[in-house]
Amino acid sequence: MRIDESNLRAMAIGCSILGAGGGGDTAVGVLASLQAVQDFGPVDVVDLDDLNDDDLVMPCGGIGAPLIWIEKIDRGDEIERIIPVVERLHDRTVVALMSAEIGGSNGLAPVTWCARAHLPMLDADGMGRAFPEVPQVTMEVAGISPNPAVMTDERGNVVIFEGIDGHWMERMERAAAVEFGGQAYSSEYQMTVAQAKTATARGTVSLAIRIGEAVLDASHDPIASLVETIDAVRVIEGKLVDVERRITGGFVRGSVTIEGLGADAGRVMRLEIQNENLVALEDGVVHAMVPDIITVCDTQTGHAIHTERLRYGQRATVIAFPCDPIWRTERGLELAGPRAFGYDLDYVPIEAIRTASREGVDG
Amino acid sequence: MRIDESNLRAMAIGCSILGAGGGGDTAVGVLASLQAVQDFGPVDVVDLDDLNDDDLVMPCGGIGAPLIWIEKIDRGDEIERIIPVVERLHDRTVVALMSAEIGGSNGLAPVTWCARAHLPMLDADGMGRAFPEVPQVTMEVAGISPNPAVMTDERGNVVIFEGIDGHWMERMERAAAVEFGGQAYSSEYQMTVAQAKTATARGTVSLAIRIGEAVLDASHDPIASLVETIDAVRVIEGKLVDVERRITGGFVRGSVTIEGLGADAGRVMRLEIQNENLVALEDGVVHAMVPDIITVCDTQTGHAIHTERLRYGQRATVIAFPCDPIWRTERGLELAGPRAFGYDLDYVPIEAIRTASREGVDG
Repeated sequence: MRIDESNLRAMAIGCSILGAGGGGDTAVGVLASLQAVQDFGPVDVVDLDDLNDDDLVMPCGGIGAPLIWIEKIDRGDEIERIIPVVERLHDRTVVALMSAEIGGSNGLAPVTWCARAHLPMLDADGMGRAFPEVPQVTMEVAGISPNPAVMTDERGNVVIFEGIDGHWMERMERAAAVEFGGQAYSSEYQMTVAQAKTATARGTVSLAIRIGEAVLDASHDPIASLVETIDAVRVIEGKLVDVERRITGGFVRGSVTIEGLGADAGRVMRLEIQNENLVALEDGVVHAMVPDIITVCDTQTGHAIHTERLRYGQRATVIAFPCDPIWRTERGLELAGPRAFGYDLDYVPIEAIRTASREGVDG
Repeated sequence: MRIDESNLRAMAIGCSILGAGGGGDTAVGVLASLQAVQDFGPVDVVDLDDLNDDDLVMPCGGIGAPLIWIEKIDRGDEIERIIPVVERLHDRTVVALMSAEIGGSNGLAPVTWCARAHLPMLDADGMGRAFPEVPQVTMEVAGISPNPAVMTDERGNVVIFEGIDGHWMERMERAAAVEFGGQAYSSEYQMTVAQAKTATARGTVSLAIRIGEAVLDASHDPIASLVETIDAVRVIEGKLVDVERRITGGFVRGSVTIEGLGADAGRVMRLEIQNENLVALEDGVVHAMVPDIITVCDTQTGHAIHTERLRYGQRATVIAFPCDPIWRTERGLELAGPRAFGYDLDYVPIEAIRTASREGVDG
């Protein structure tokens, strides 16, 4: 598979839907990656099974506040500056880049970097969705070291971090990203192909493209096409009647209230947000929860609405679908389950909630 | 020359006097270094002329707010963690450590690090005094690259910076130091012995010891002994009648008013402060200015009073003496002259001010 002008827009739509509201707006990323594949050629997408076990793969992405990306555009050569540093530190060649998070603009950005560096892009990522913090990646769950992390900005400053753990990596990198103007580029958790086979969310690049194509190719109901493609739960269809959003501790936090329309008339759903959509609640009953993916989609177009774009009056359909299985392990839930975000909830997979809900309706 | 229990207290007094009010309190540093020379043996002080030109020397010091050092004590092995990183990055052995700044606790701290690492300490430093910012060192004046900078904290985190210039090095390191709790340890501007010969303030360790011994050995008037030893100007002897101090932008800023006593009765001097004492003013006339060294000394003991310890009622004598000549070059004044600190003053060396003042008195 290759990424080129023919499927980049579909990929962007898919990345946004996988982002659970986070990962950053893809508008600039689509333009940048279209330009990159025109200038440097299409990007090959490779599966881990097609690479040698000893080869080195390099996760990469932007770090900082997604909102800033909309106006603070990168220079384009940031990851090219990181690659040789990573190669020097590991004393081996990087054979492929991987998105640290498939969700939002971070899922799309490696297309530009791969095109410029003439490297293939792995059909995998470190989340299978979007999450806000450095150690909230499948590699951390799998016990891969985040060291060395390499960060750069658009000016050419380079920082190498050797942290005592993922928590300190997050603190150090976040402070540097703030100093660089709220946003920078980094690579952590470099690993061998053999390690990546069990430490990543696999097949997520092709999934993003498939999702985007399902939305784009739908003749009249993109949401129906989307729900069918990923076997998602339709949580509610309605109108945004209240958006409460504030920026605290470097994160966007808040909640959104959606009043049902059509078949859902009379229902009221609240979404809790911290960069991503975390919990969907109706009358105190949880309808979906992190780490499963909760995405607010425009009911007409099927496109995801990122949390920073939510506003009163939007007609939206909330969908929810399963996260990568690695997040459902004990360590996965410790890092990114409801309690990691401050919700005193036992995690229940979206499939179990759906089954219980159907039984309730049936009974 | 060696540093051991016999001269450590003298060295601490000298470092404080060379600190121009900054560089941090030496109280903890004296205890730490006394313990270190007891545990690991005395430290040899070497001159650059006694080393091979190609050898690598490593400047080092604490970075952050001096006030924090009083309570946030280091683990002791911080610089031992930095040395192998520096050696790996330069692919050569470090033959001696050097204080990045001789002023205050940073001048004394390398004694502990040298004792632990069994390395000699250079009889030189990067300032000949204390200054607040990373690039305010003689190496920057001499055009030595600050890269790579290596920083660590007491937990074991390590960060390597490759900055585009000294200004960005300051910004990046300061942000990391804040994240580490307001204070950390670092090395920048590593260089060869050949480079160090013209890029450092030389002889400052033995000078600090000589100054401290002059103060300690004085039979009745330590200030007189001090003034004679370093050919200092006695700016005023009096009493602190007003101390105005605030913390802005990570620095201590403020001013101190001193009313003359004895021969100086009737005079009023104001000192302007930003971490260090920057300008001494009387009726709008400048009596001493940065980069020359202005130090407030306890009139009875001759010990320096650091800017964070100044308070109403102290009997103090303000002295001023020449900075290292490298600061009087065009690039030196650009980095650390009065205008670098926001004072619209043309620099006049303390010797010239003294001569003009004497001529005024005589005429």
